[in-house]
Parts: sequence; structure tokens; C-alpha cells
Amino acid sequence: MRIKILRIGHRPERDHRITTHVALVSRAFGADSISIWEKDEKIKKSLDKVSKSWGGNFRVFFETYKQAFKDFKGISVHLTMYGIPFEEKIKEIRDSVINDNKDLMIIVGAEKVPKDIYDISSYNISVTNQPHSEISALAIFLDRLYEGKEIKKEFKNPKLKIYPSEKGKNIINEKL
Amino acid sequence: MRIKILRIGHRPERDHRITTHVALVSRAFGADSISIWEKDEKIKKSLDKVSKSWGGNFRVFFETYKQAFKDFKGISVHLTMYGIPFEEKIKEIRDSVINDNKDLMIIVGAEKVPKDIYDISSYNISVTNQPHSEISALAIFLDRLYEGKEIKKEFKNPKLKIYPSEKGKNIINEKL
Repeated sequence: MRIKILRIGHRPERDHRITTHVALVSRAFGADSISIWEKDEKIKKSLDKVSKSWGGNFRVFFETYKQAFKDFKGISVHLTMYGIPFEEKIKEIRDSVINDNKDLMIIVGAEKVPKDIYDISSYNISVTNQPHSEISALAIFLDRLYEGKEIKKEFKNPKLKIYPSEKGKNIINEKL
Repeated sequence: MRIKILRIGHRPERDHRITTHVALVSRAFGADSISIWEKDEKIKKSLDKVSKSWGGNFRVFFETYKQAFKDFKGISVHLTMYGIPFEEKIKEIRDSVINDNKDLMIIVGAEKVPKDIYDISSYNISVTNQPHSEISALAIFLDRLYEGKEIKKEFKNPKLKIYPSEKGKNIINEKL
């Protein structure tokens, strides 16, 4: 089973920081890769740097959503405030992905989403029907999908590691 | 019990969109207000507009962190990747806030956080020790604090309301 995030609606100038946060959440909460529909090499560079420092093998790709859907065999979940509350579907999706080992593609839009996304996605799912952020929607969805377990995992082969502390910062370079 | 979010490190030019997402998450996930340490009237305007459309009484204030801490009697939680994993402390914090009815202030920083925040906060808490986003950290923390119940609540007196649908958008103006 692999989880990929498809970030649509990204405009490099305007959305650079938000999409970077989407990518960081994807990595930290257990996705394997993100595909962005427009080239933005700076995001790829900063995520590659994060993986080098903090471990794991998260990948950044660029592809159109049509290409992404065409190549994808699995379950696709479009996160939208207009969709069915995730509480109603999460068990069904978890059964397919975690238990039946199907691939999952989670589609995360910016302000405007092409209309056909609603039709071609297996599910249109909301994380509340209130306006908030694609960053928080993705984090909550992945956290619930994994039932809170994935965010405790250790990334493989990190250079830097944090040792949690009550006050201040305790960060160790494991390779020195 | 009231929950306020304290957004520090905000620079209006650079952080406008990220802080707007932080504010939207604060509202959607059950906080009562956000205090931003630098004036940014555009954020206040857009959050006021959101409350007018989608209901509730979420407030935006501007104050320095020194002022905010001085005036605050309750429990303060600084979210930082260097802190103690929230899983270890969330029950203790929930007991104080939800059961003992103490006020909660959650401090959310941008890149640079004044050093004394680590000392003056009651807790320094991490949502994973990996880099991701203050937006997702806040969402996960509030979701777990409320044990997933708060995001199902209805906001009072909305003008707009979404009726969840399998495909497409179903949005109703309740006041027409």
C-alpha cells in the first residue's frame, strides 16, 4: 500500500508556502509522495533537504491531475468542505487501504478545483463543513486514517533528531 | 472555560496567508479567539466575514505576547517540535481545561520564537518531533483535546450552510 498526495490548484508565486506546508504534512503524517500540478522546484528542493536531515524517503513529483488519475489504480479521496463527513467513511477507506492494501491518492485543492475532480474521485470527503485549511484537513484525515499511530513512527536514517524536552531545544546530530 | 490562540512571530507581509489559516483552524476546531502580536486588519476582516457567513462569535485581537501572558490566568501550551509529545500530556491538560474549567491559551509560533516563551508557558508540547506546520499542529492538538467531538458542532446563527454531498456542492443560504 502506498499513499500519494495530489496537490492541485497550486500557483507557484502565490501558493509556495501553503503547498510547502501541505508537503511537510504529507511526509510527517505518513504519505509516501506528493504530486504537484505545476512545477515548483523550490518545494522539491526544500522537501529533499528535510528528508536528508530528518530521514525517510519522501518524494516530490510534478504531474497534471489528468495524468495522475490516468496512471492511478486505487482509491482516490478528494478533500473538500462540500463532501461527506470523514467520520462516516473513514472506516471503509481504512479497511481498503490499511487492511486490503490498496493504494490511496488524496487530492488536496487550493481555492479553485476543476469540476471533474468531484466526479472522478472515489470519494469527496469533508473534514468539517466549515472553512479552514487544506493543511489541517489533510493532517486530520491522515491522523484518523492511521488511528493516531503513524505520527509516532521514527523516520529511517535521520541526520538530526529531537529529544523532547520540557523547556528549550534539544537537537542532536546523529551522524557526528 | 475559554480557549484563546496566541499567534506570535507574525509578519503581516510574509505570513498573511499562513496566519489566516491558523485563525480559521482556531475557529473551526473550537477556540474562542486569536490574538496576533502585530496588527493585520485584513485577517480580522476576513475572519469577521467568515463568522458572519458561517456562524459563531470568533474574535480576532492584537496584543503583544507579554501583554497576553500578563493578563492570562490559566494554562498555557506552547506548540513546538522540541516539546514533550502531546500524547503524554493531553489527558492532564484536558482534565484541567474541560473538566476543571480552566482557561487555555495555545501559543503558535512562526519561524522564530522569543526564547522566554519556553520558560513562561506551562507546557511545551510537540505534535510529532518532525517539521510540518503550525496549522496542522494546532488542528491535531485541538482535535485530540476535544476527543474529536468539537469539530462536529454546529455554529450558531449561520447565514450559509453546507449540506454534505457525494458529488458536487450543496450550499444553502439559510436566511433567504
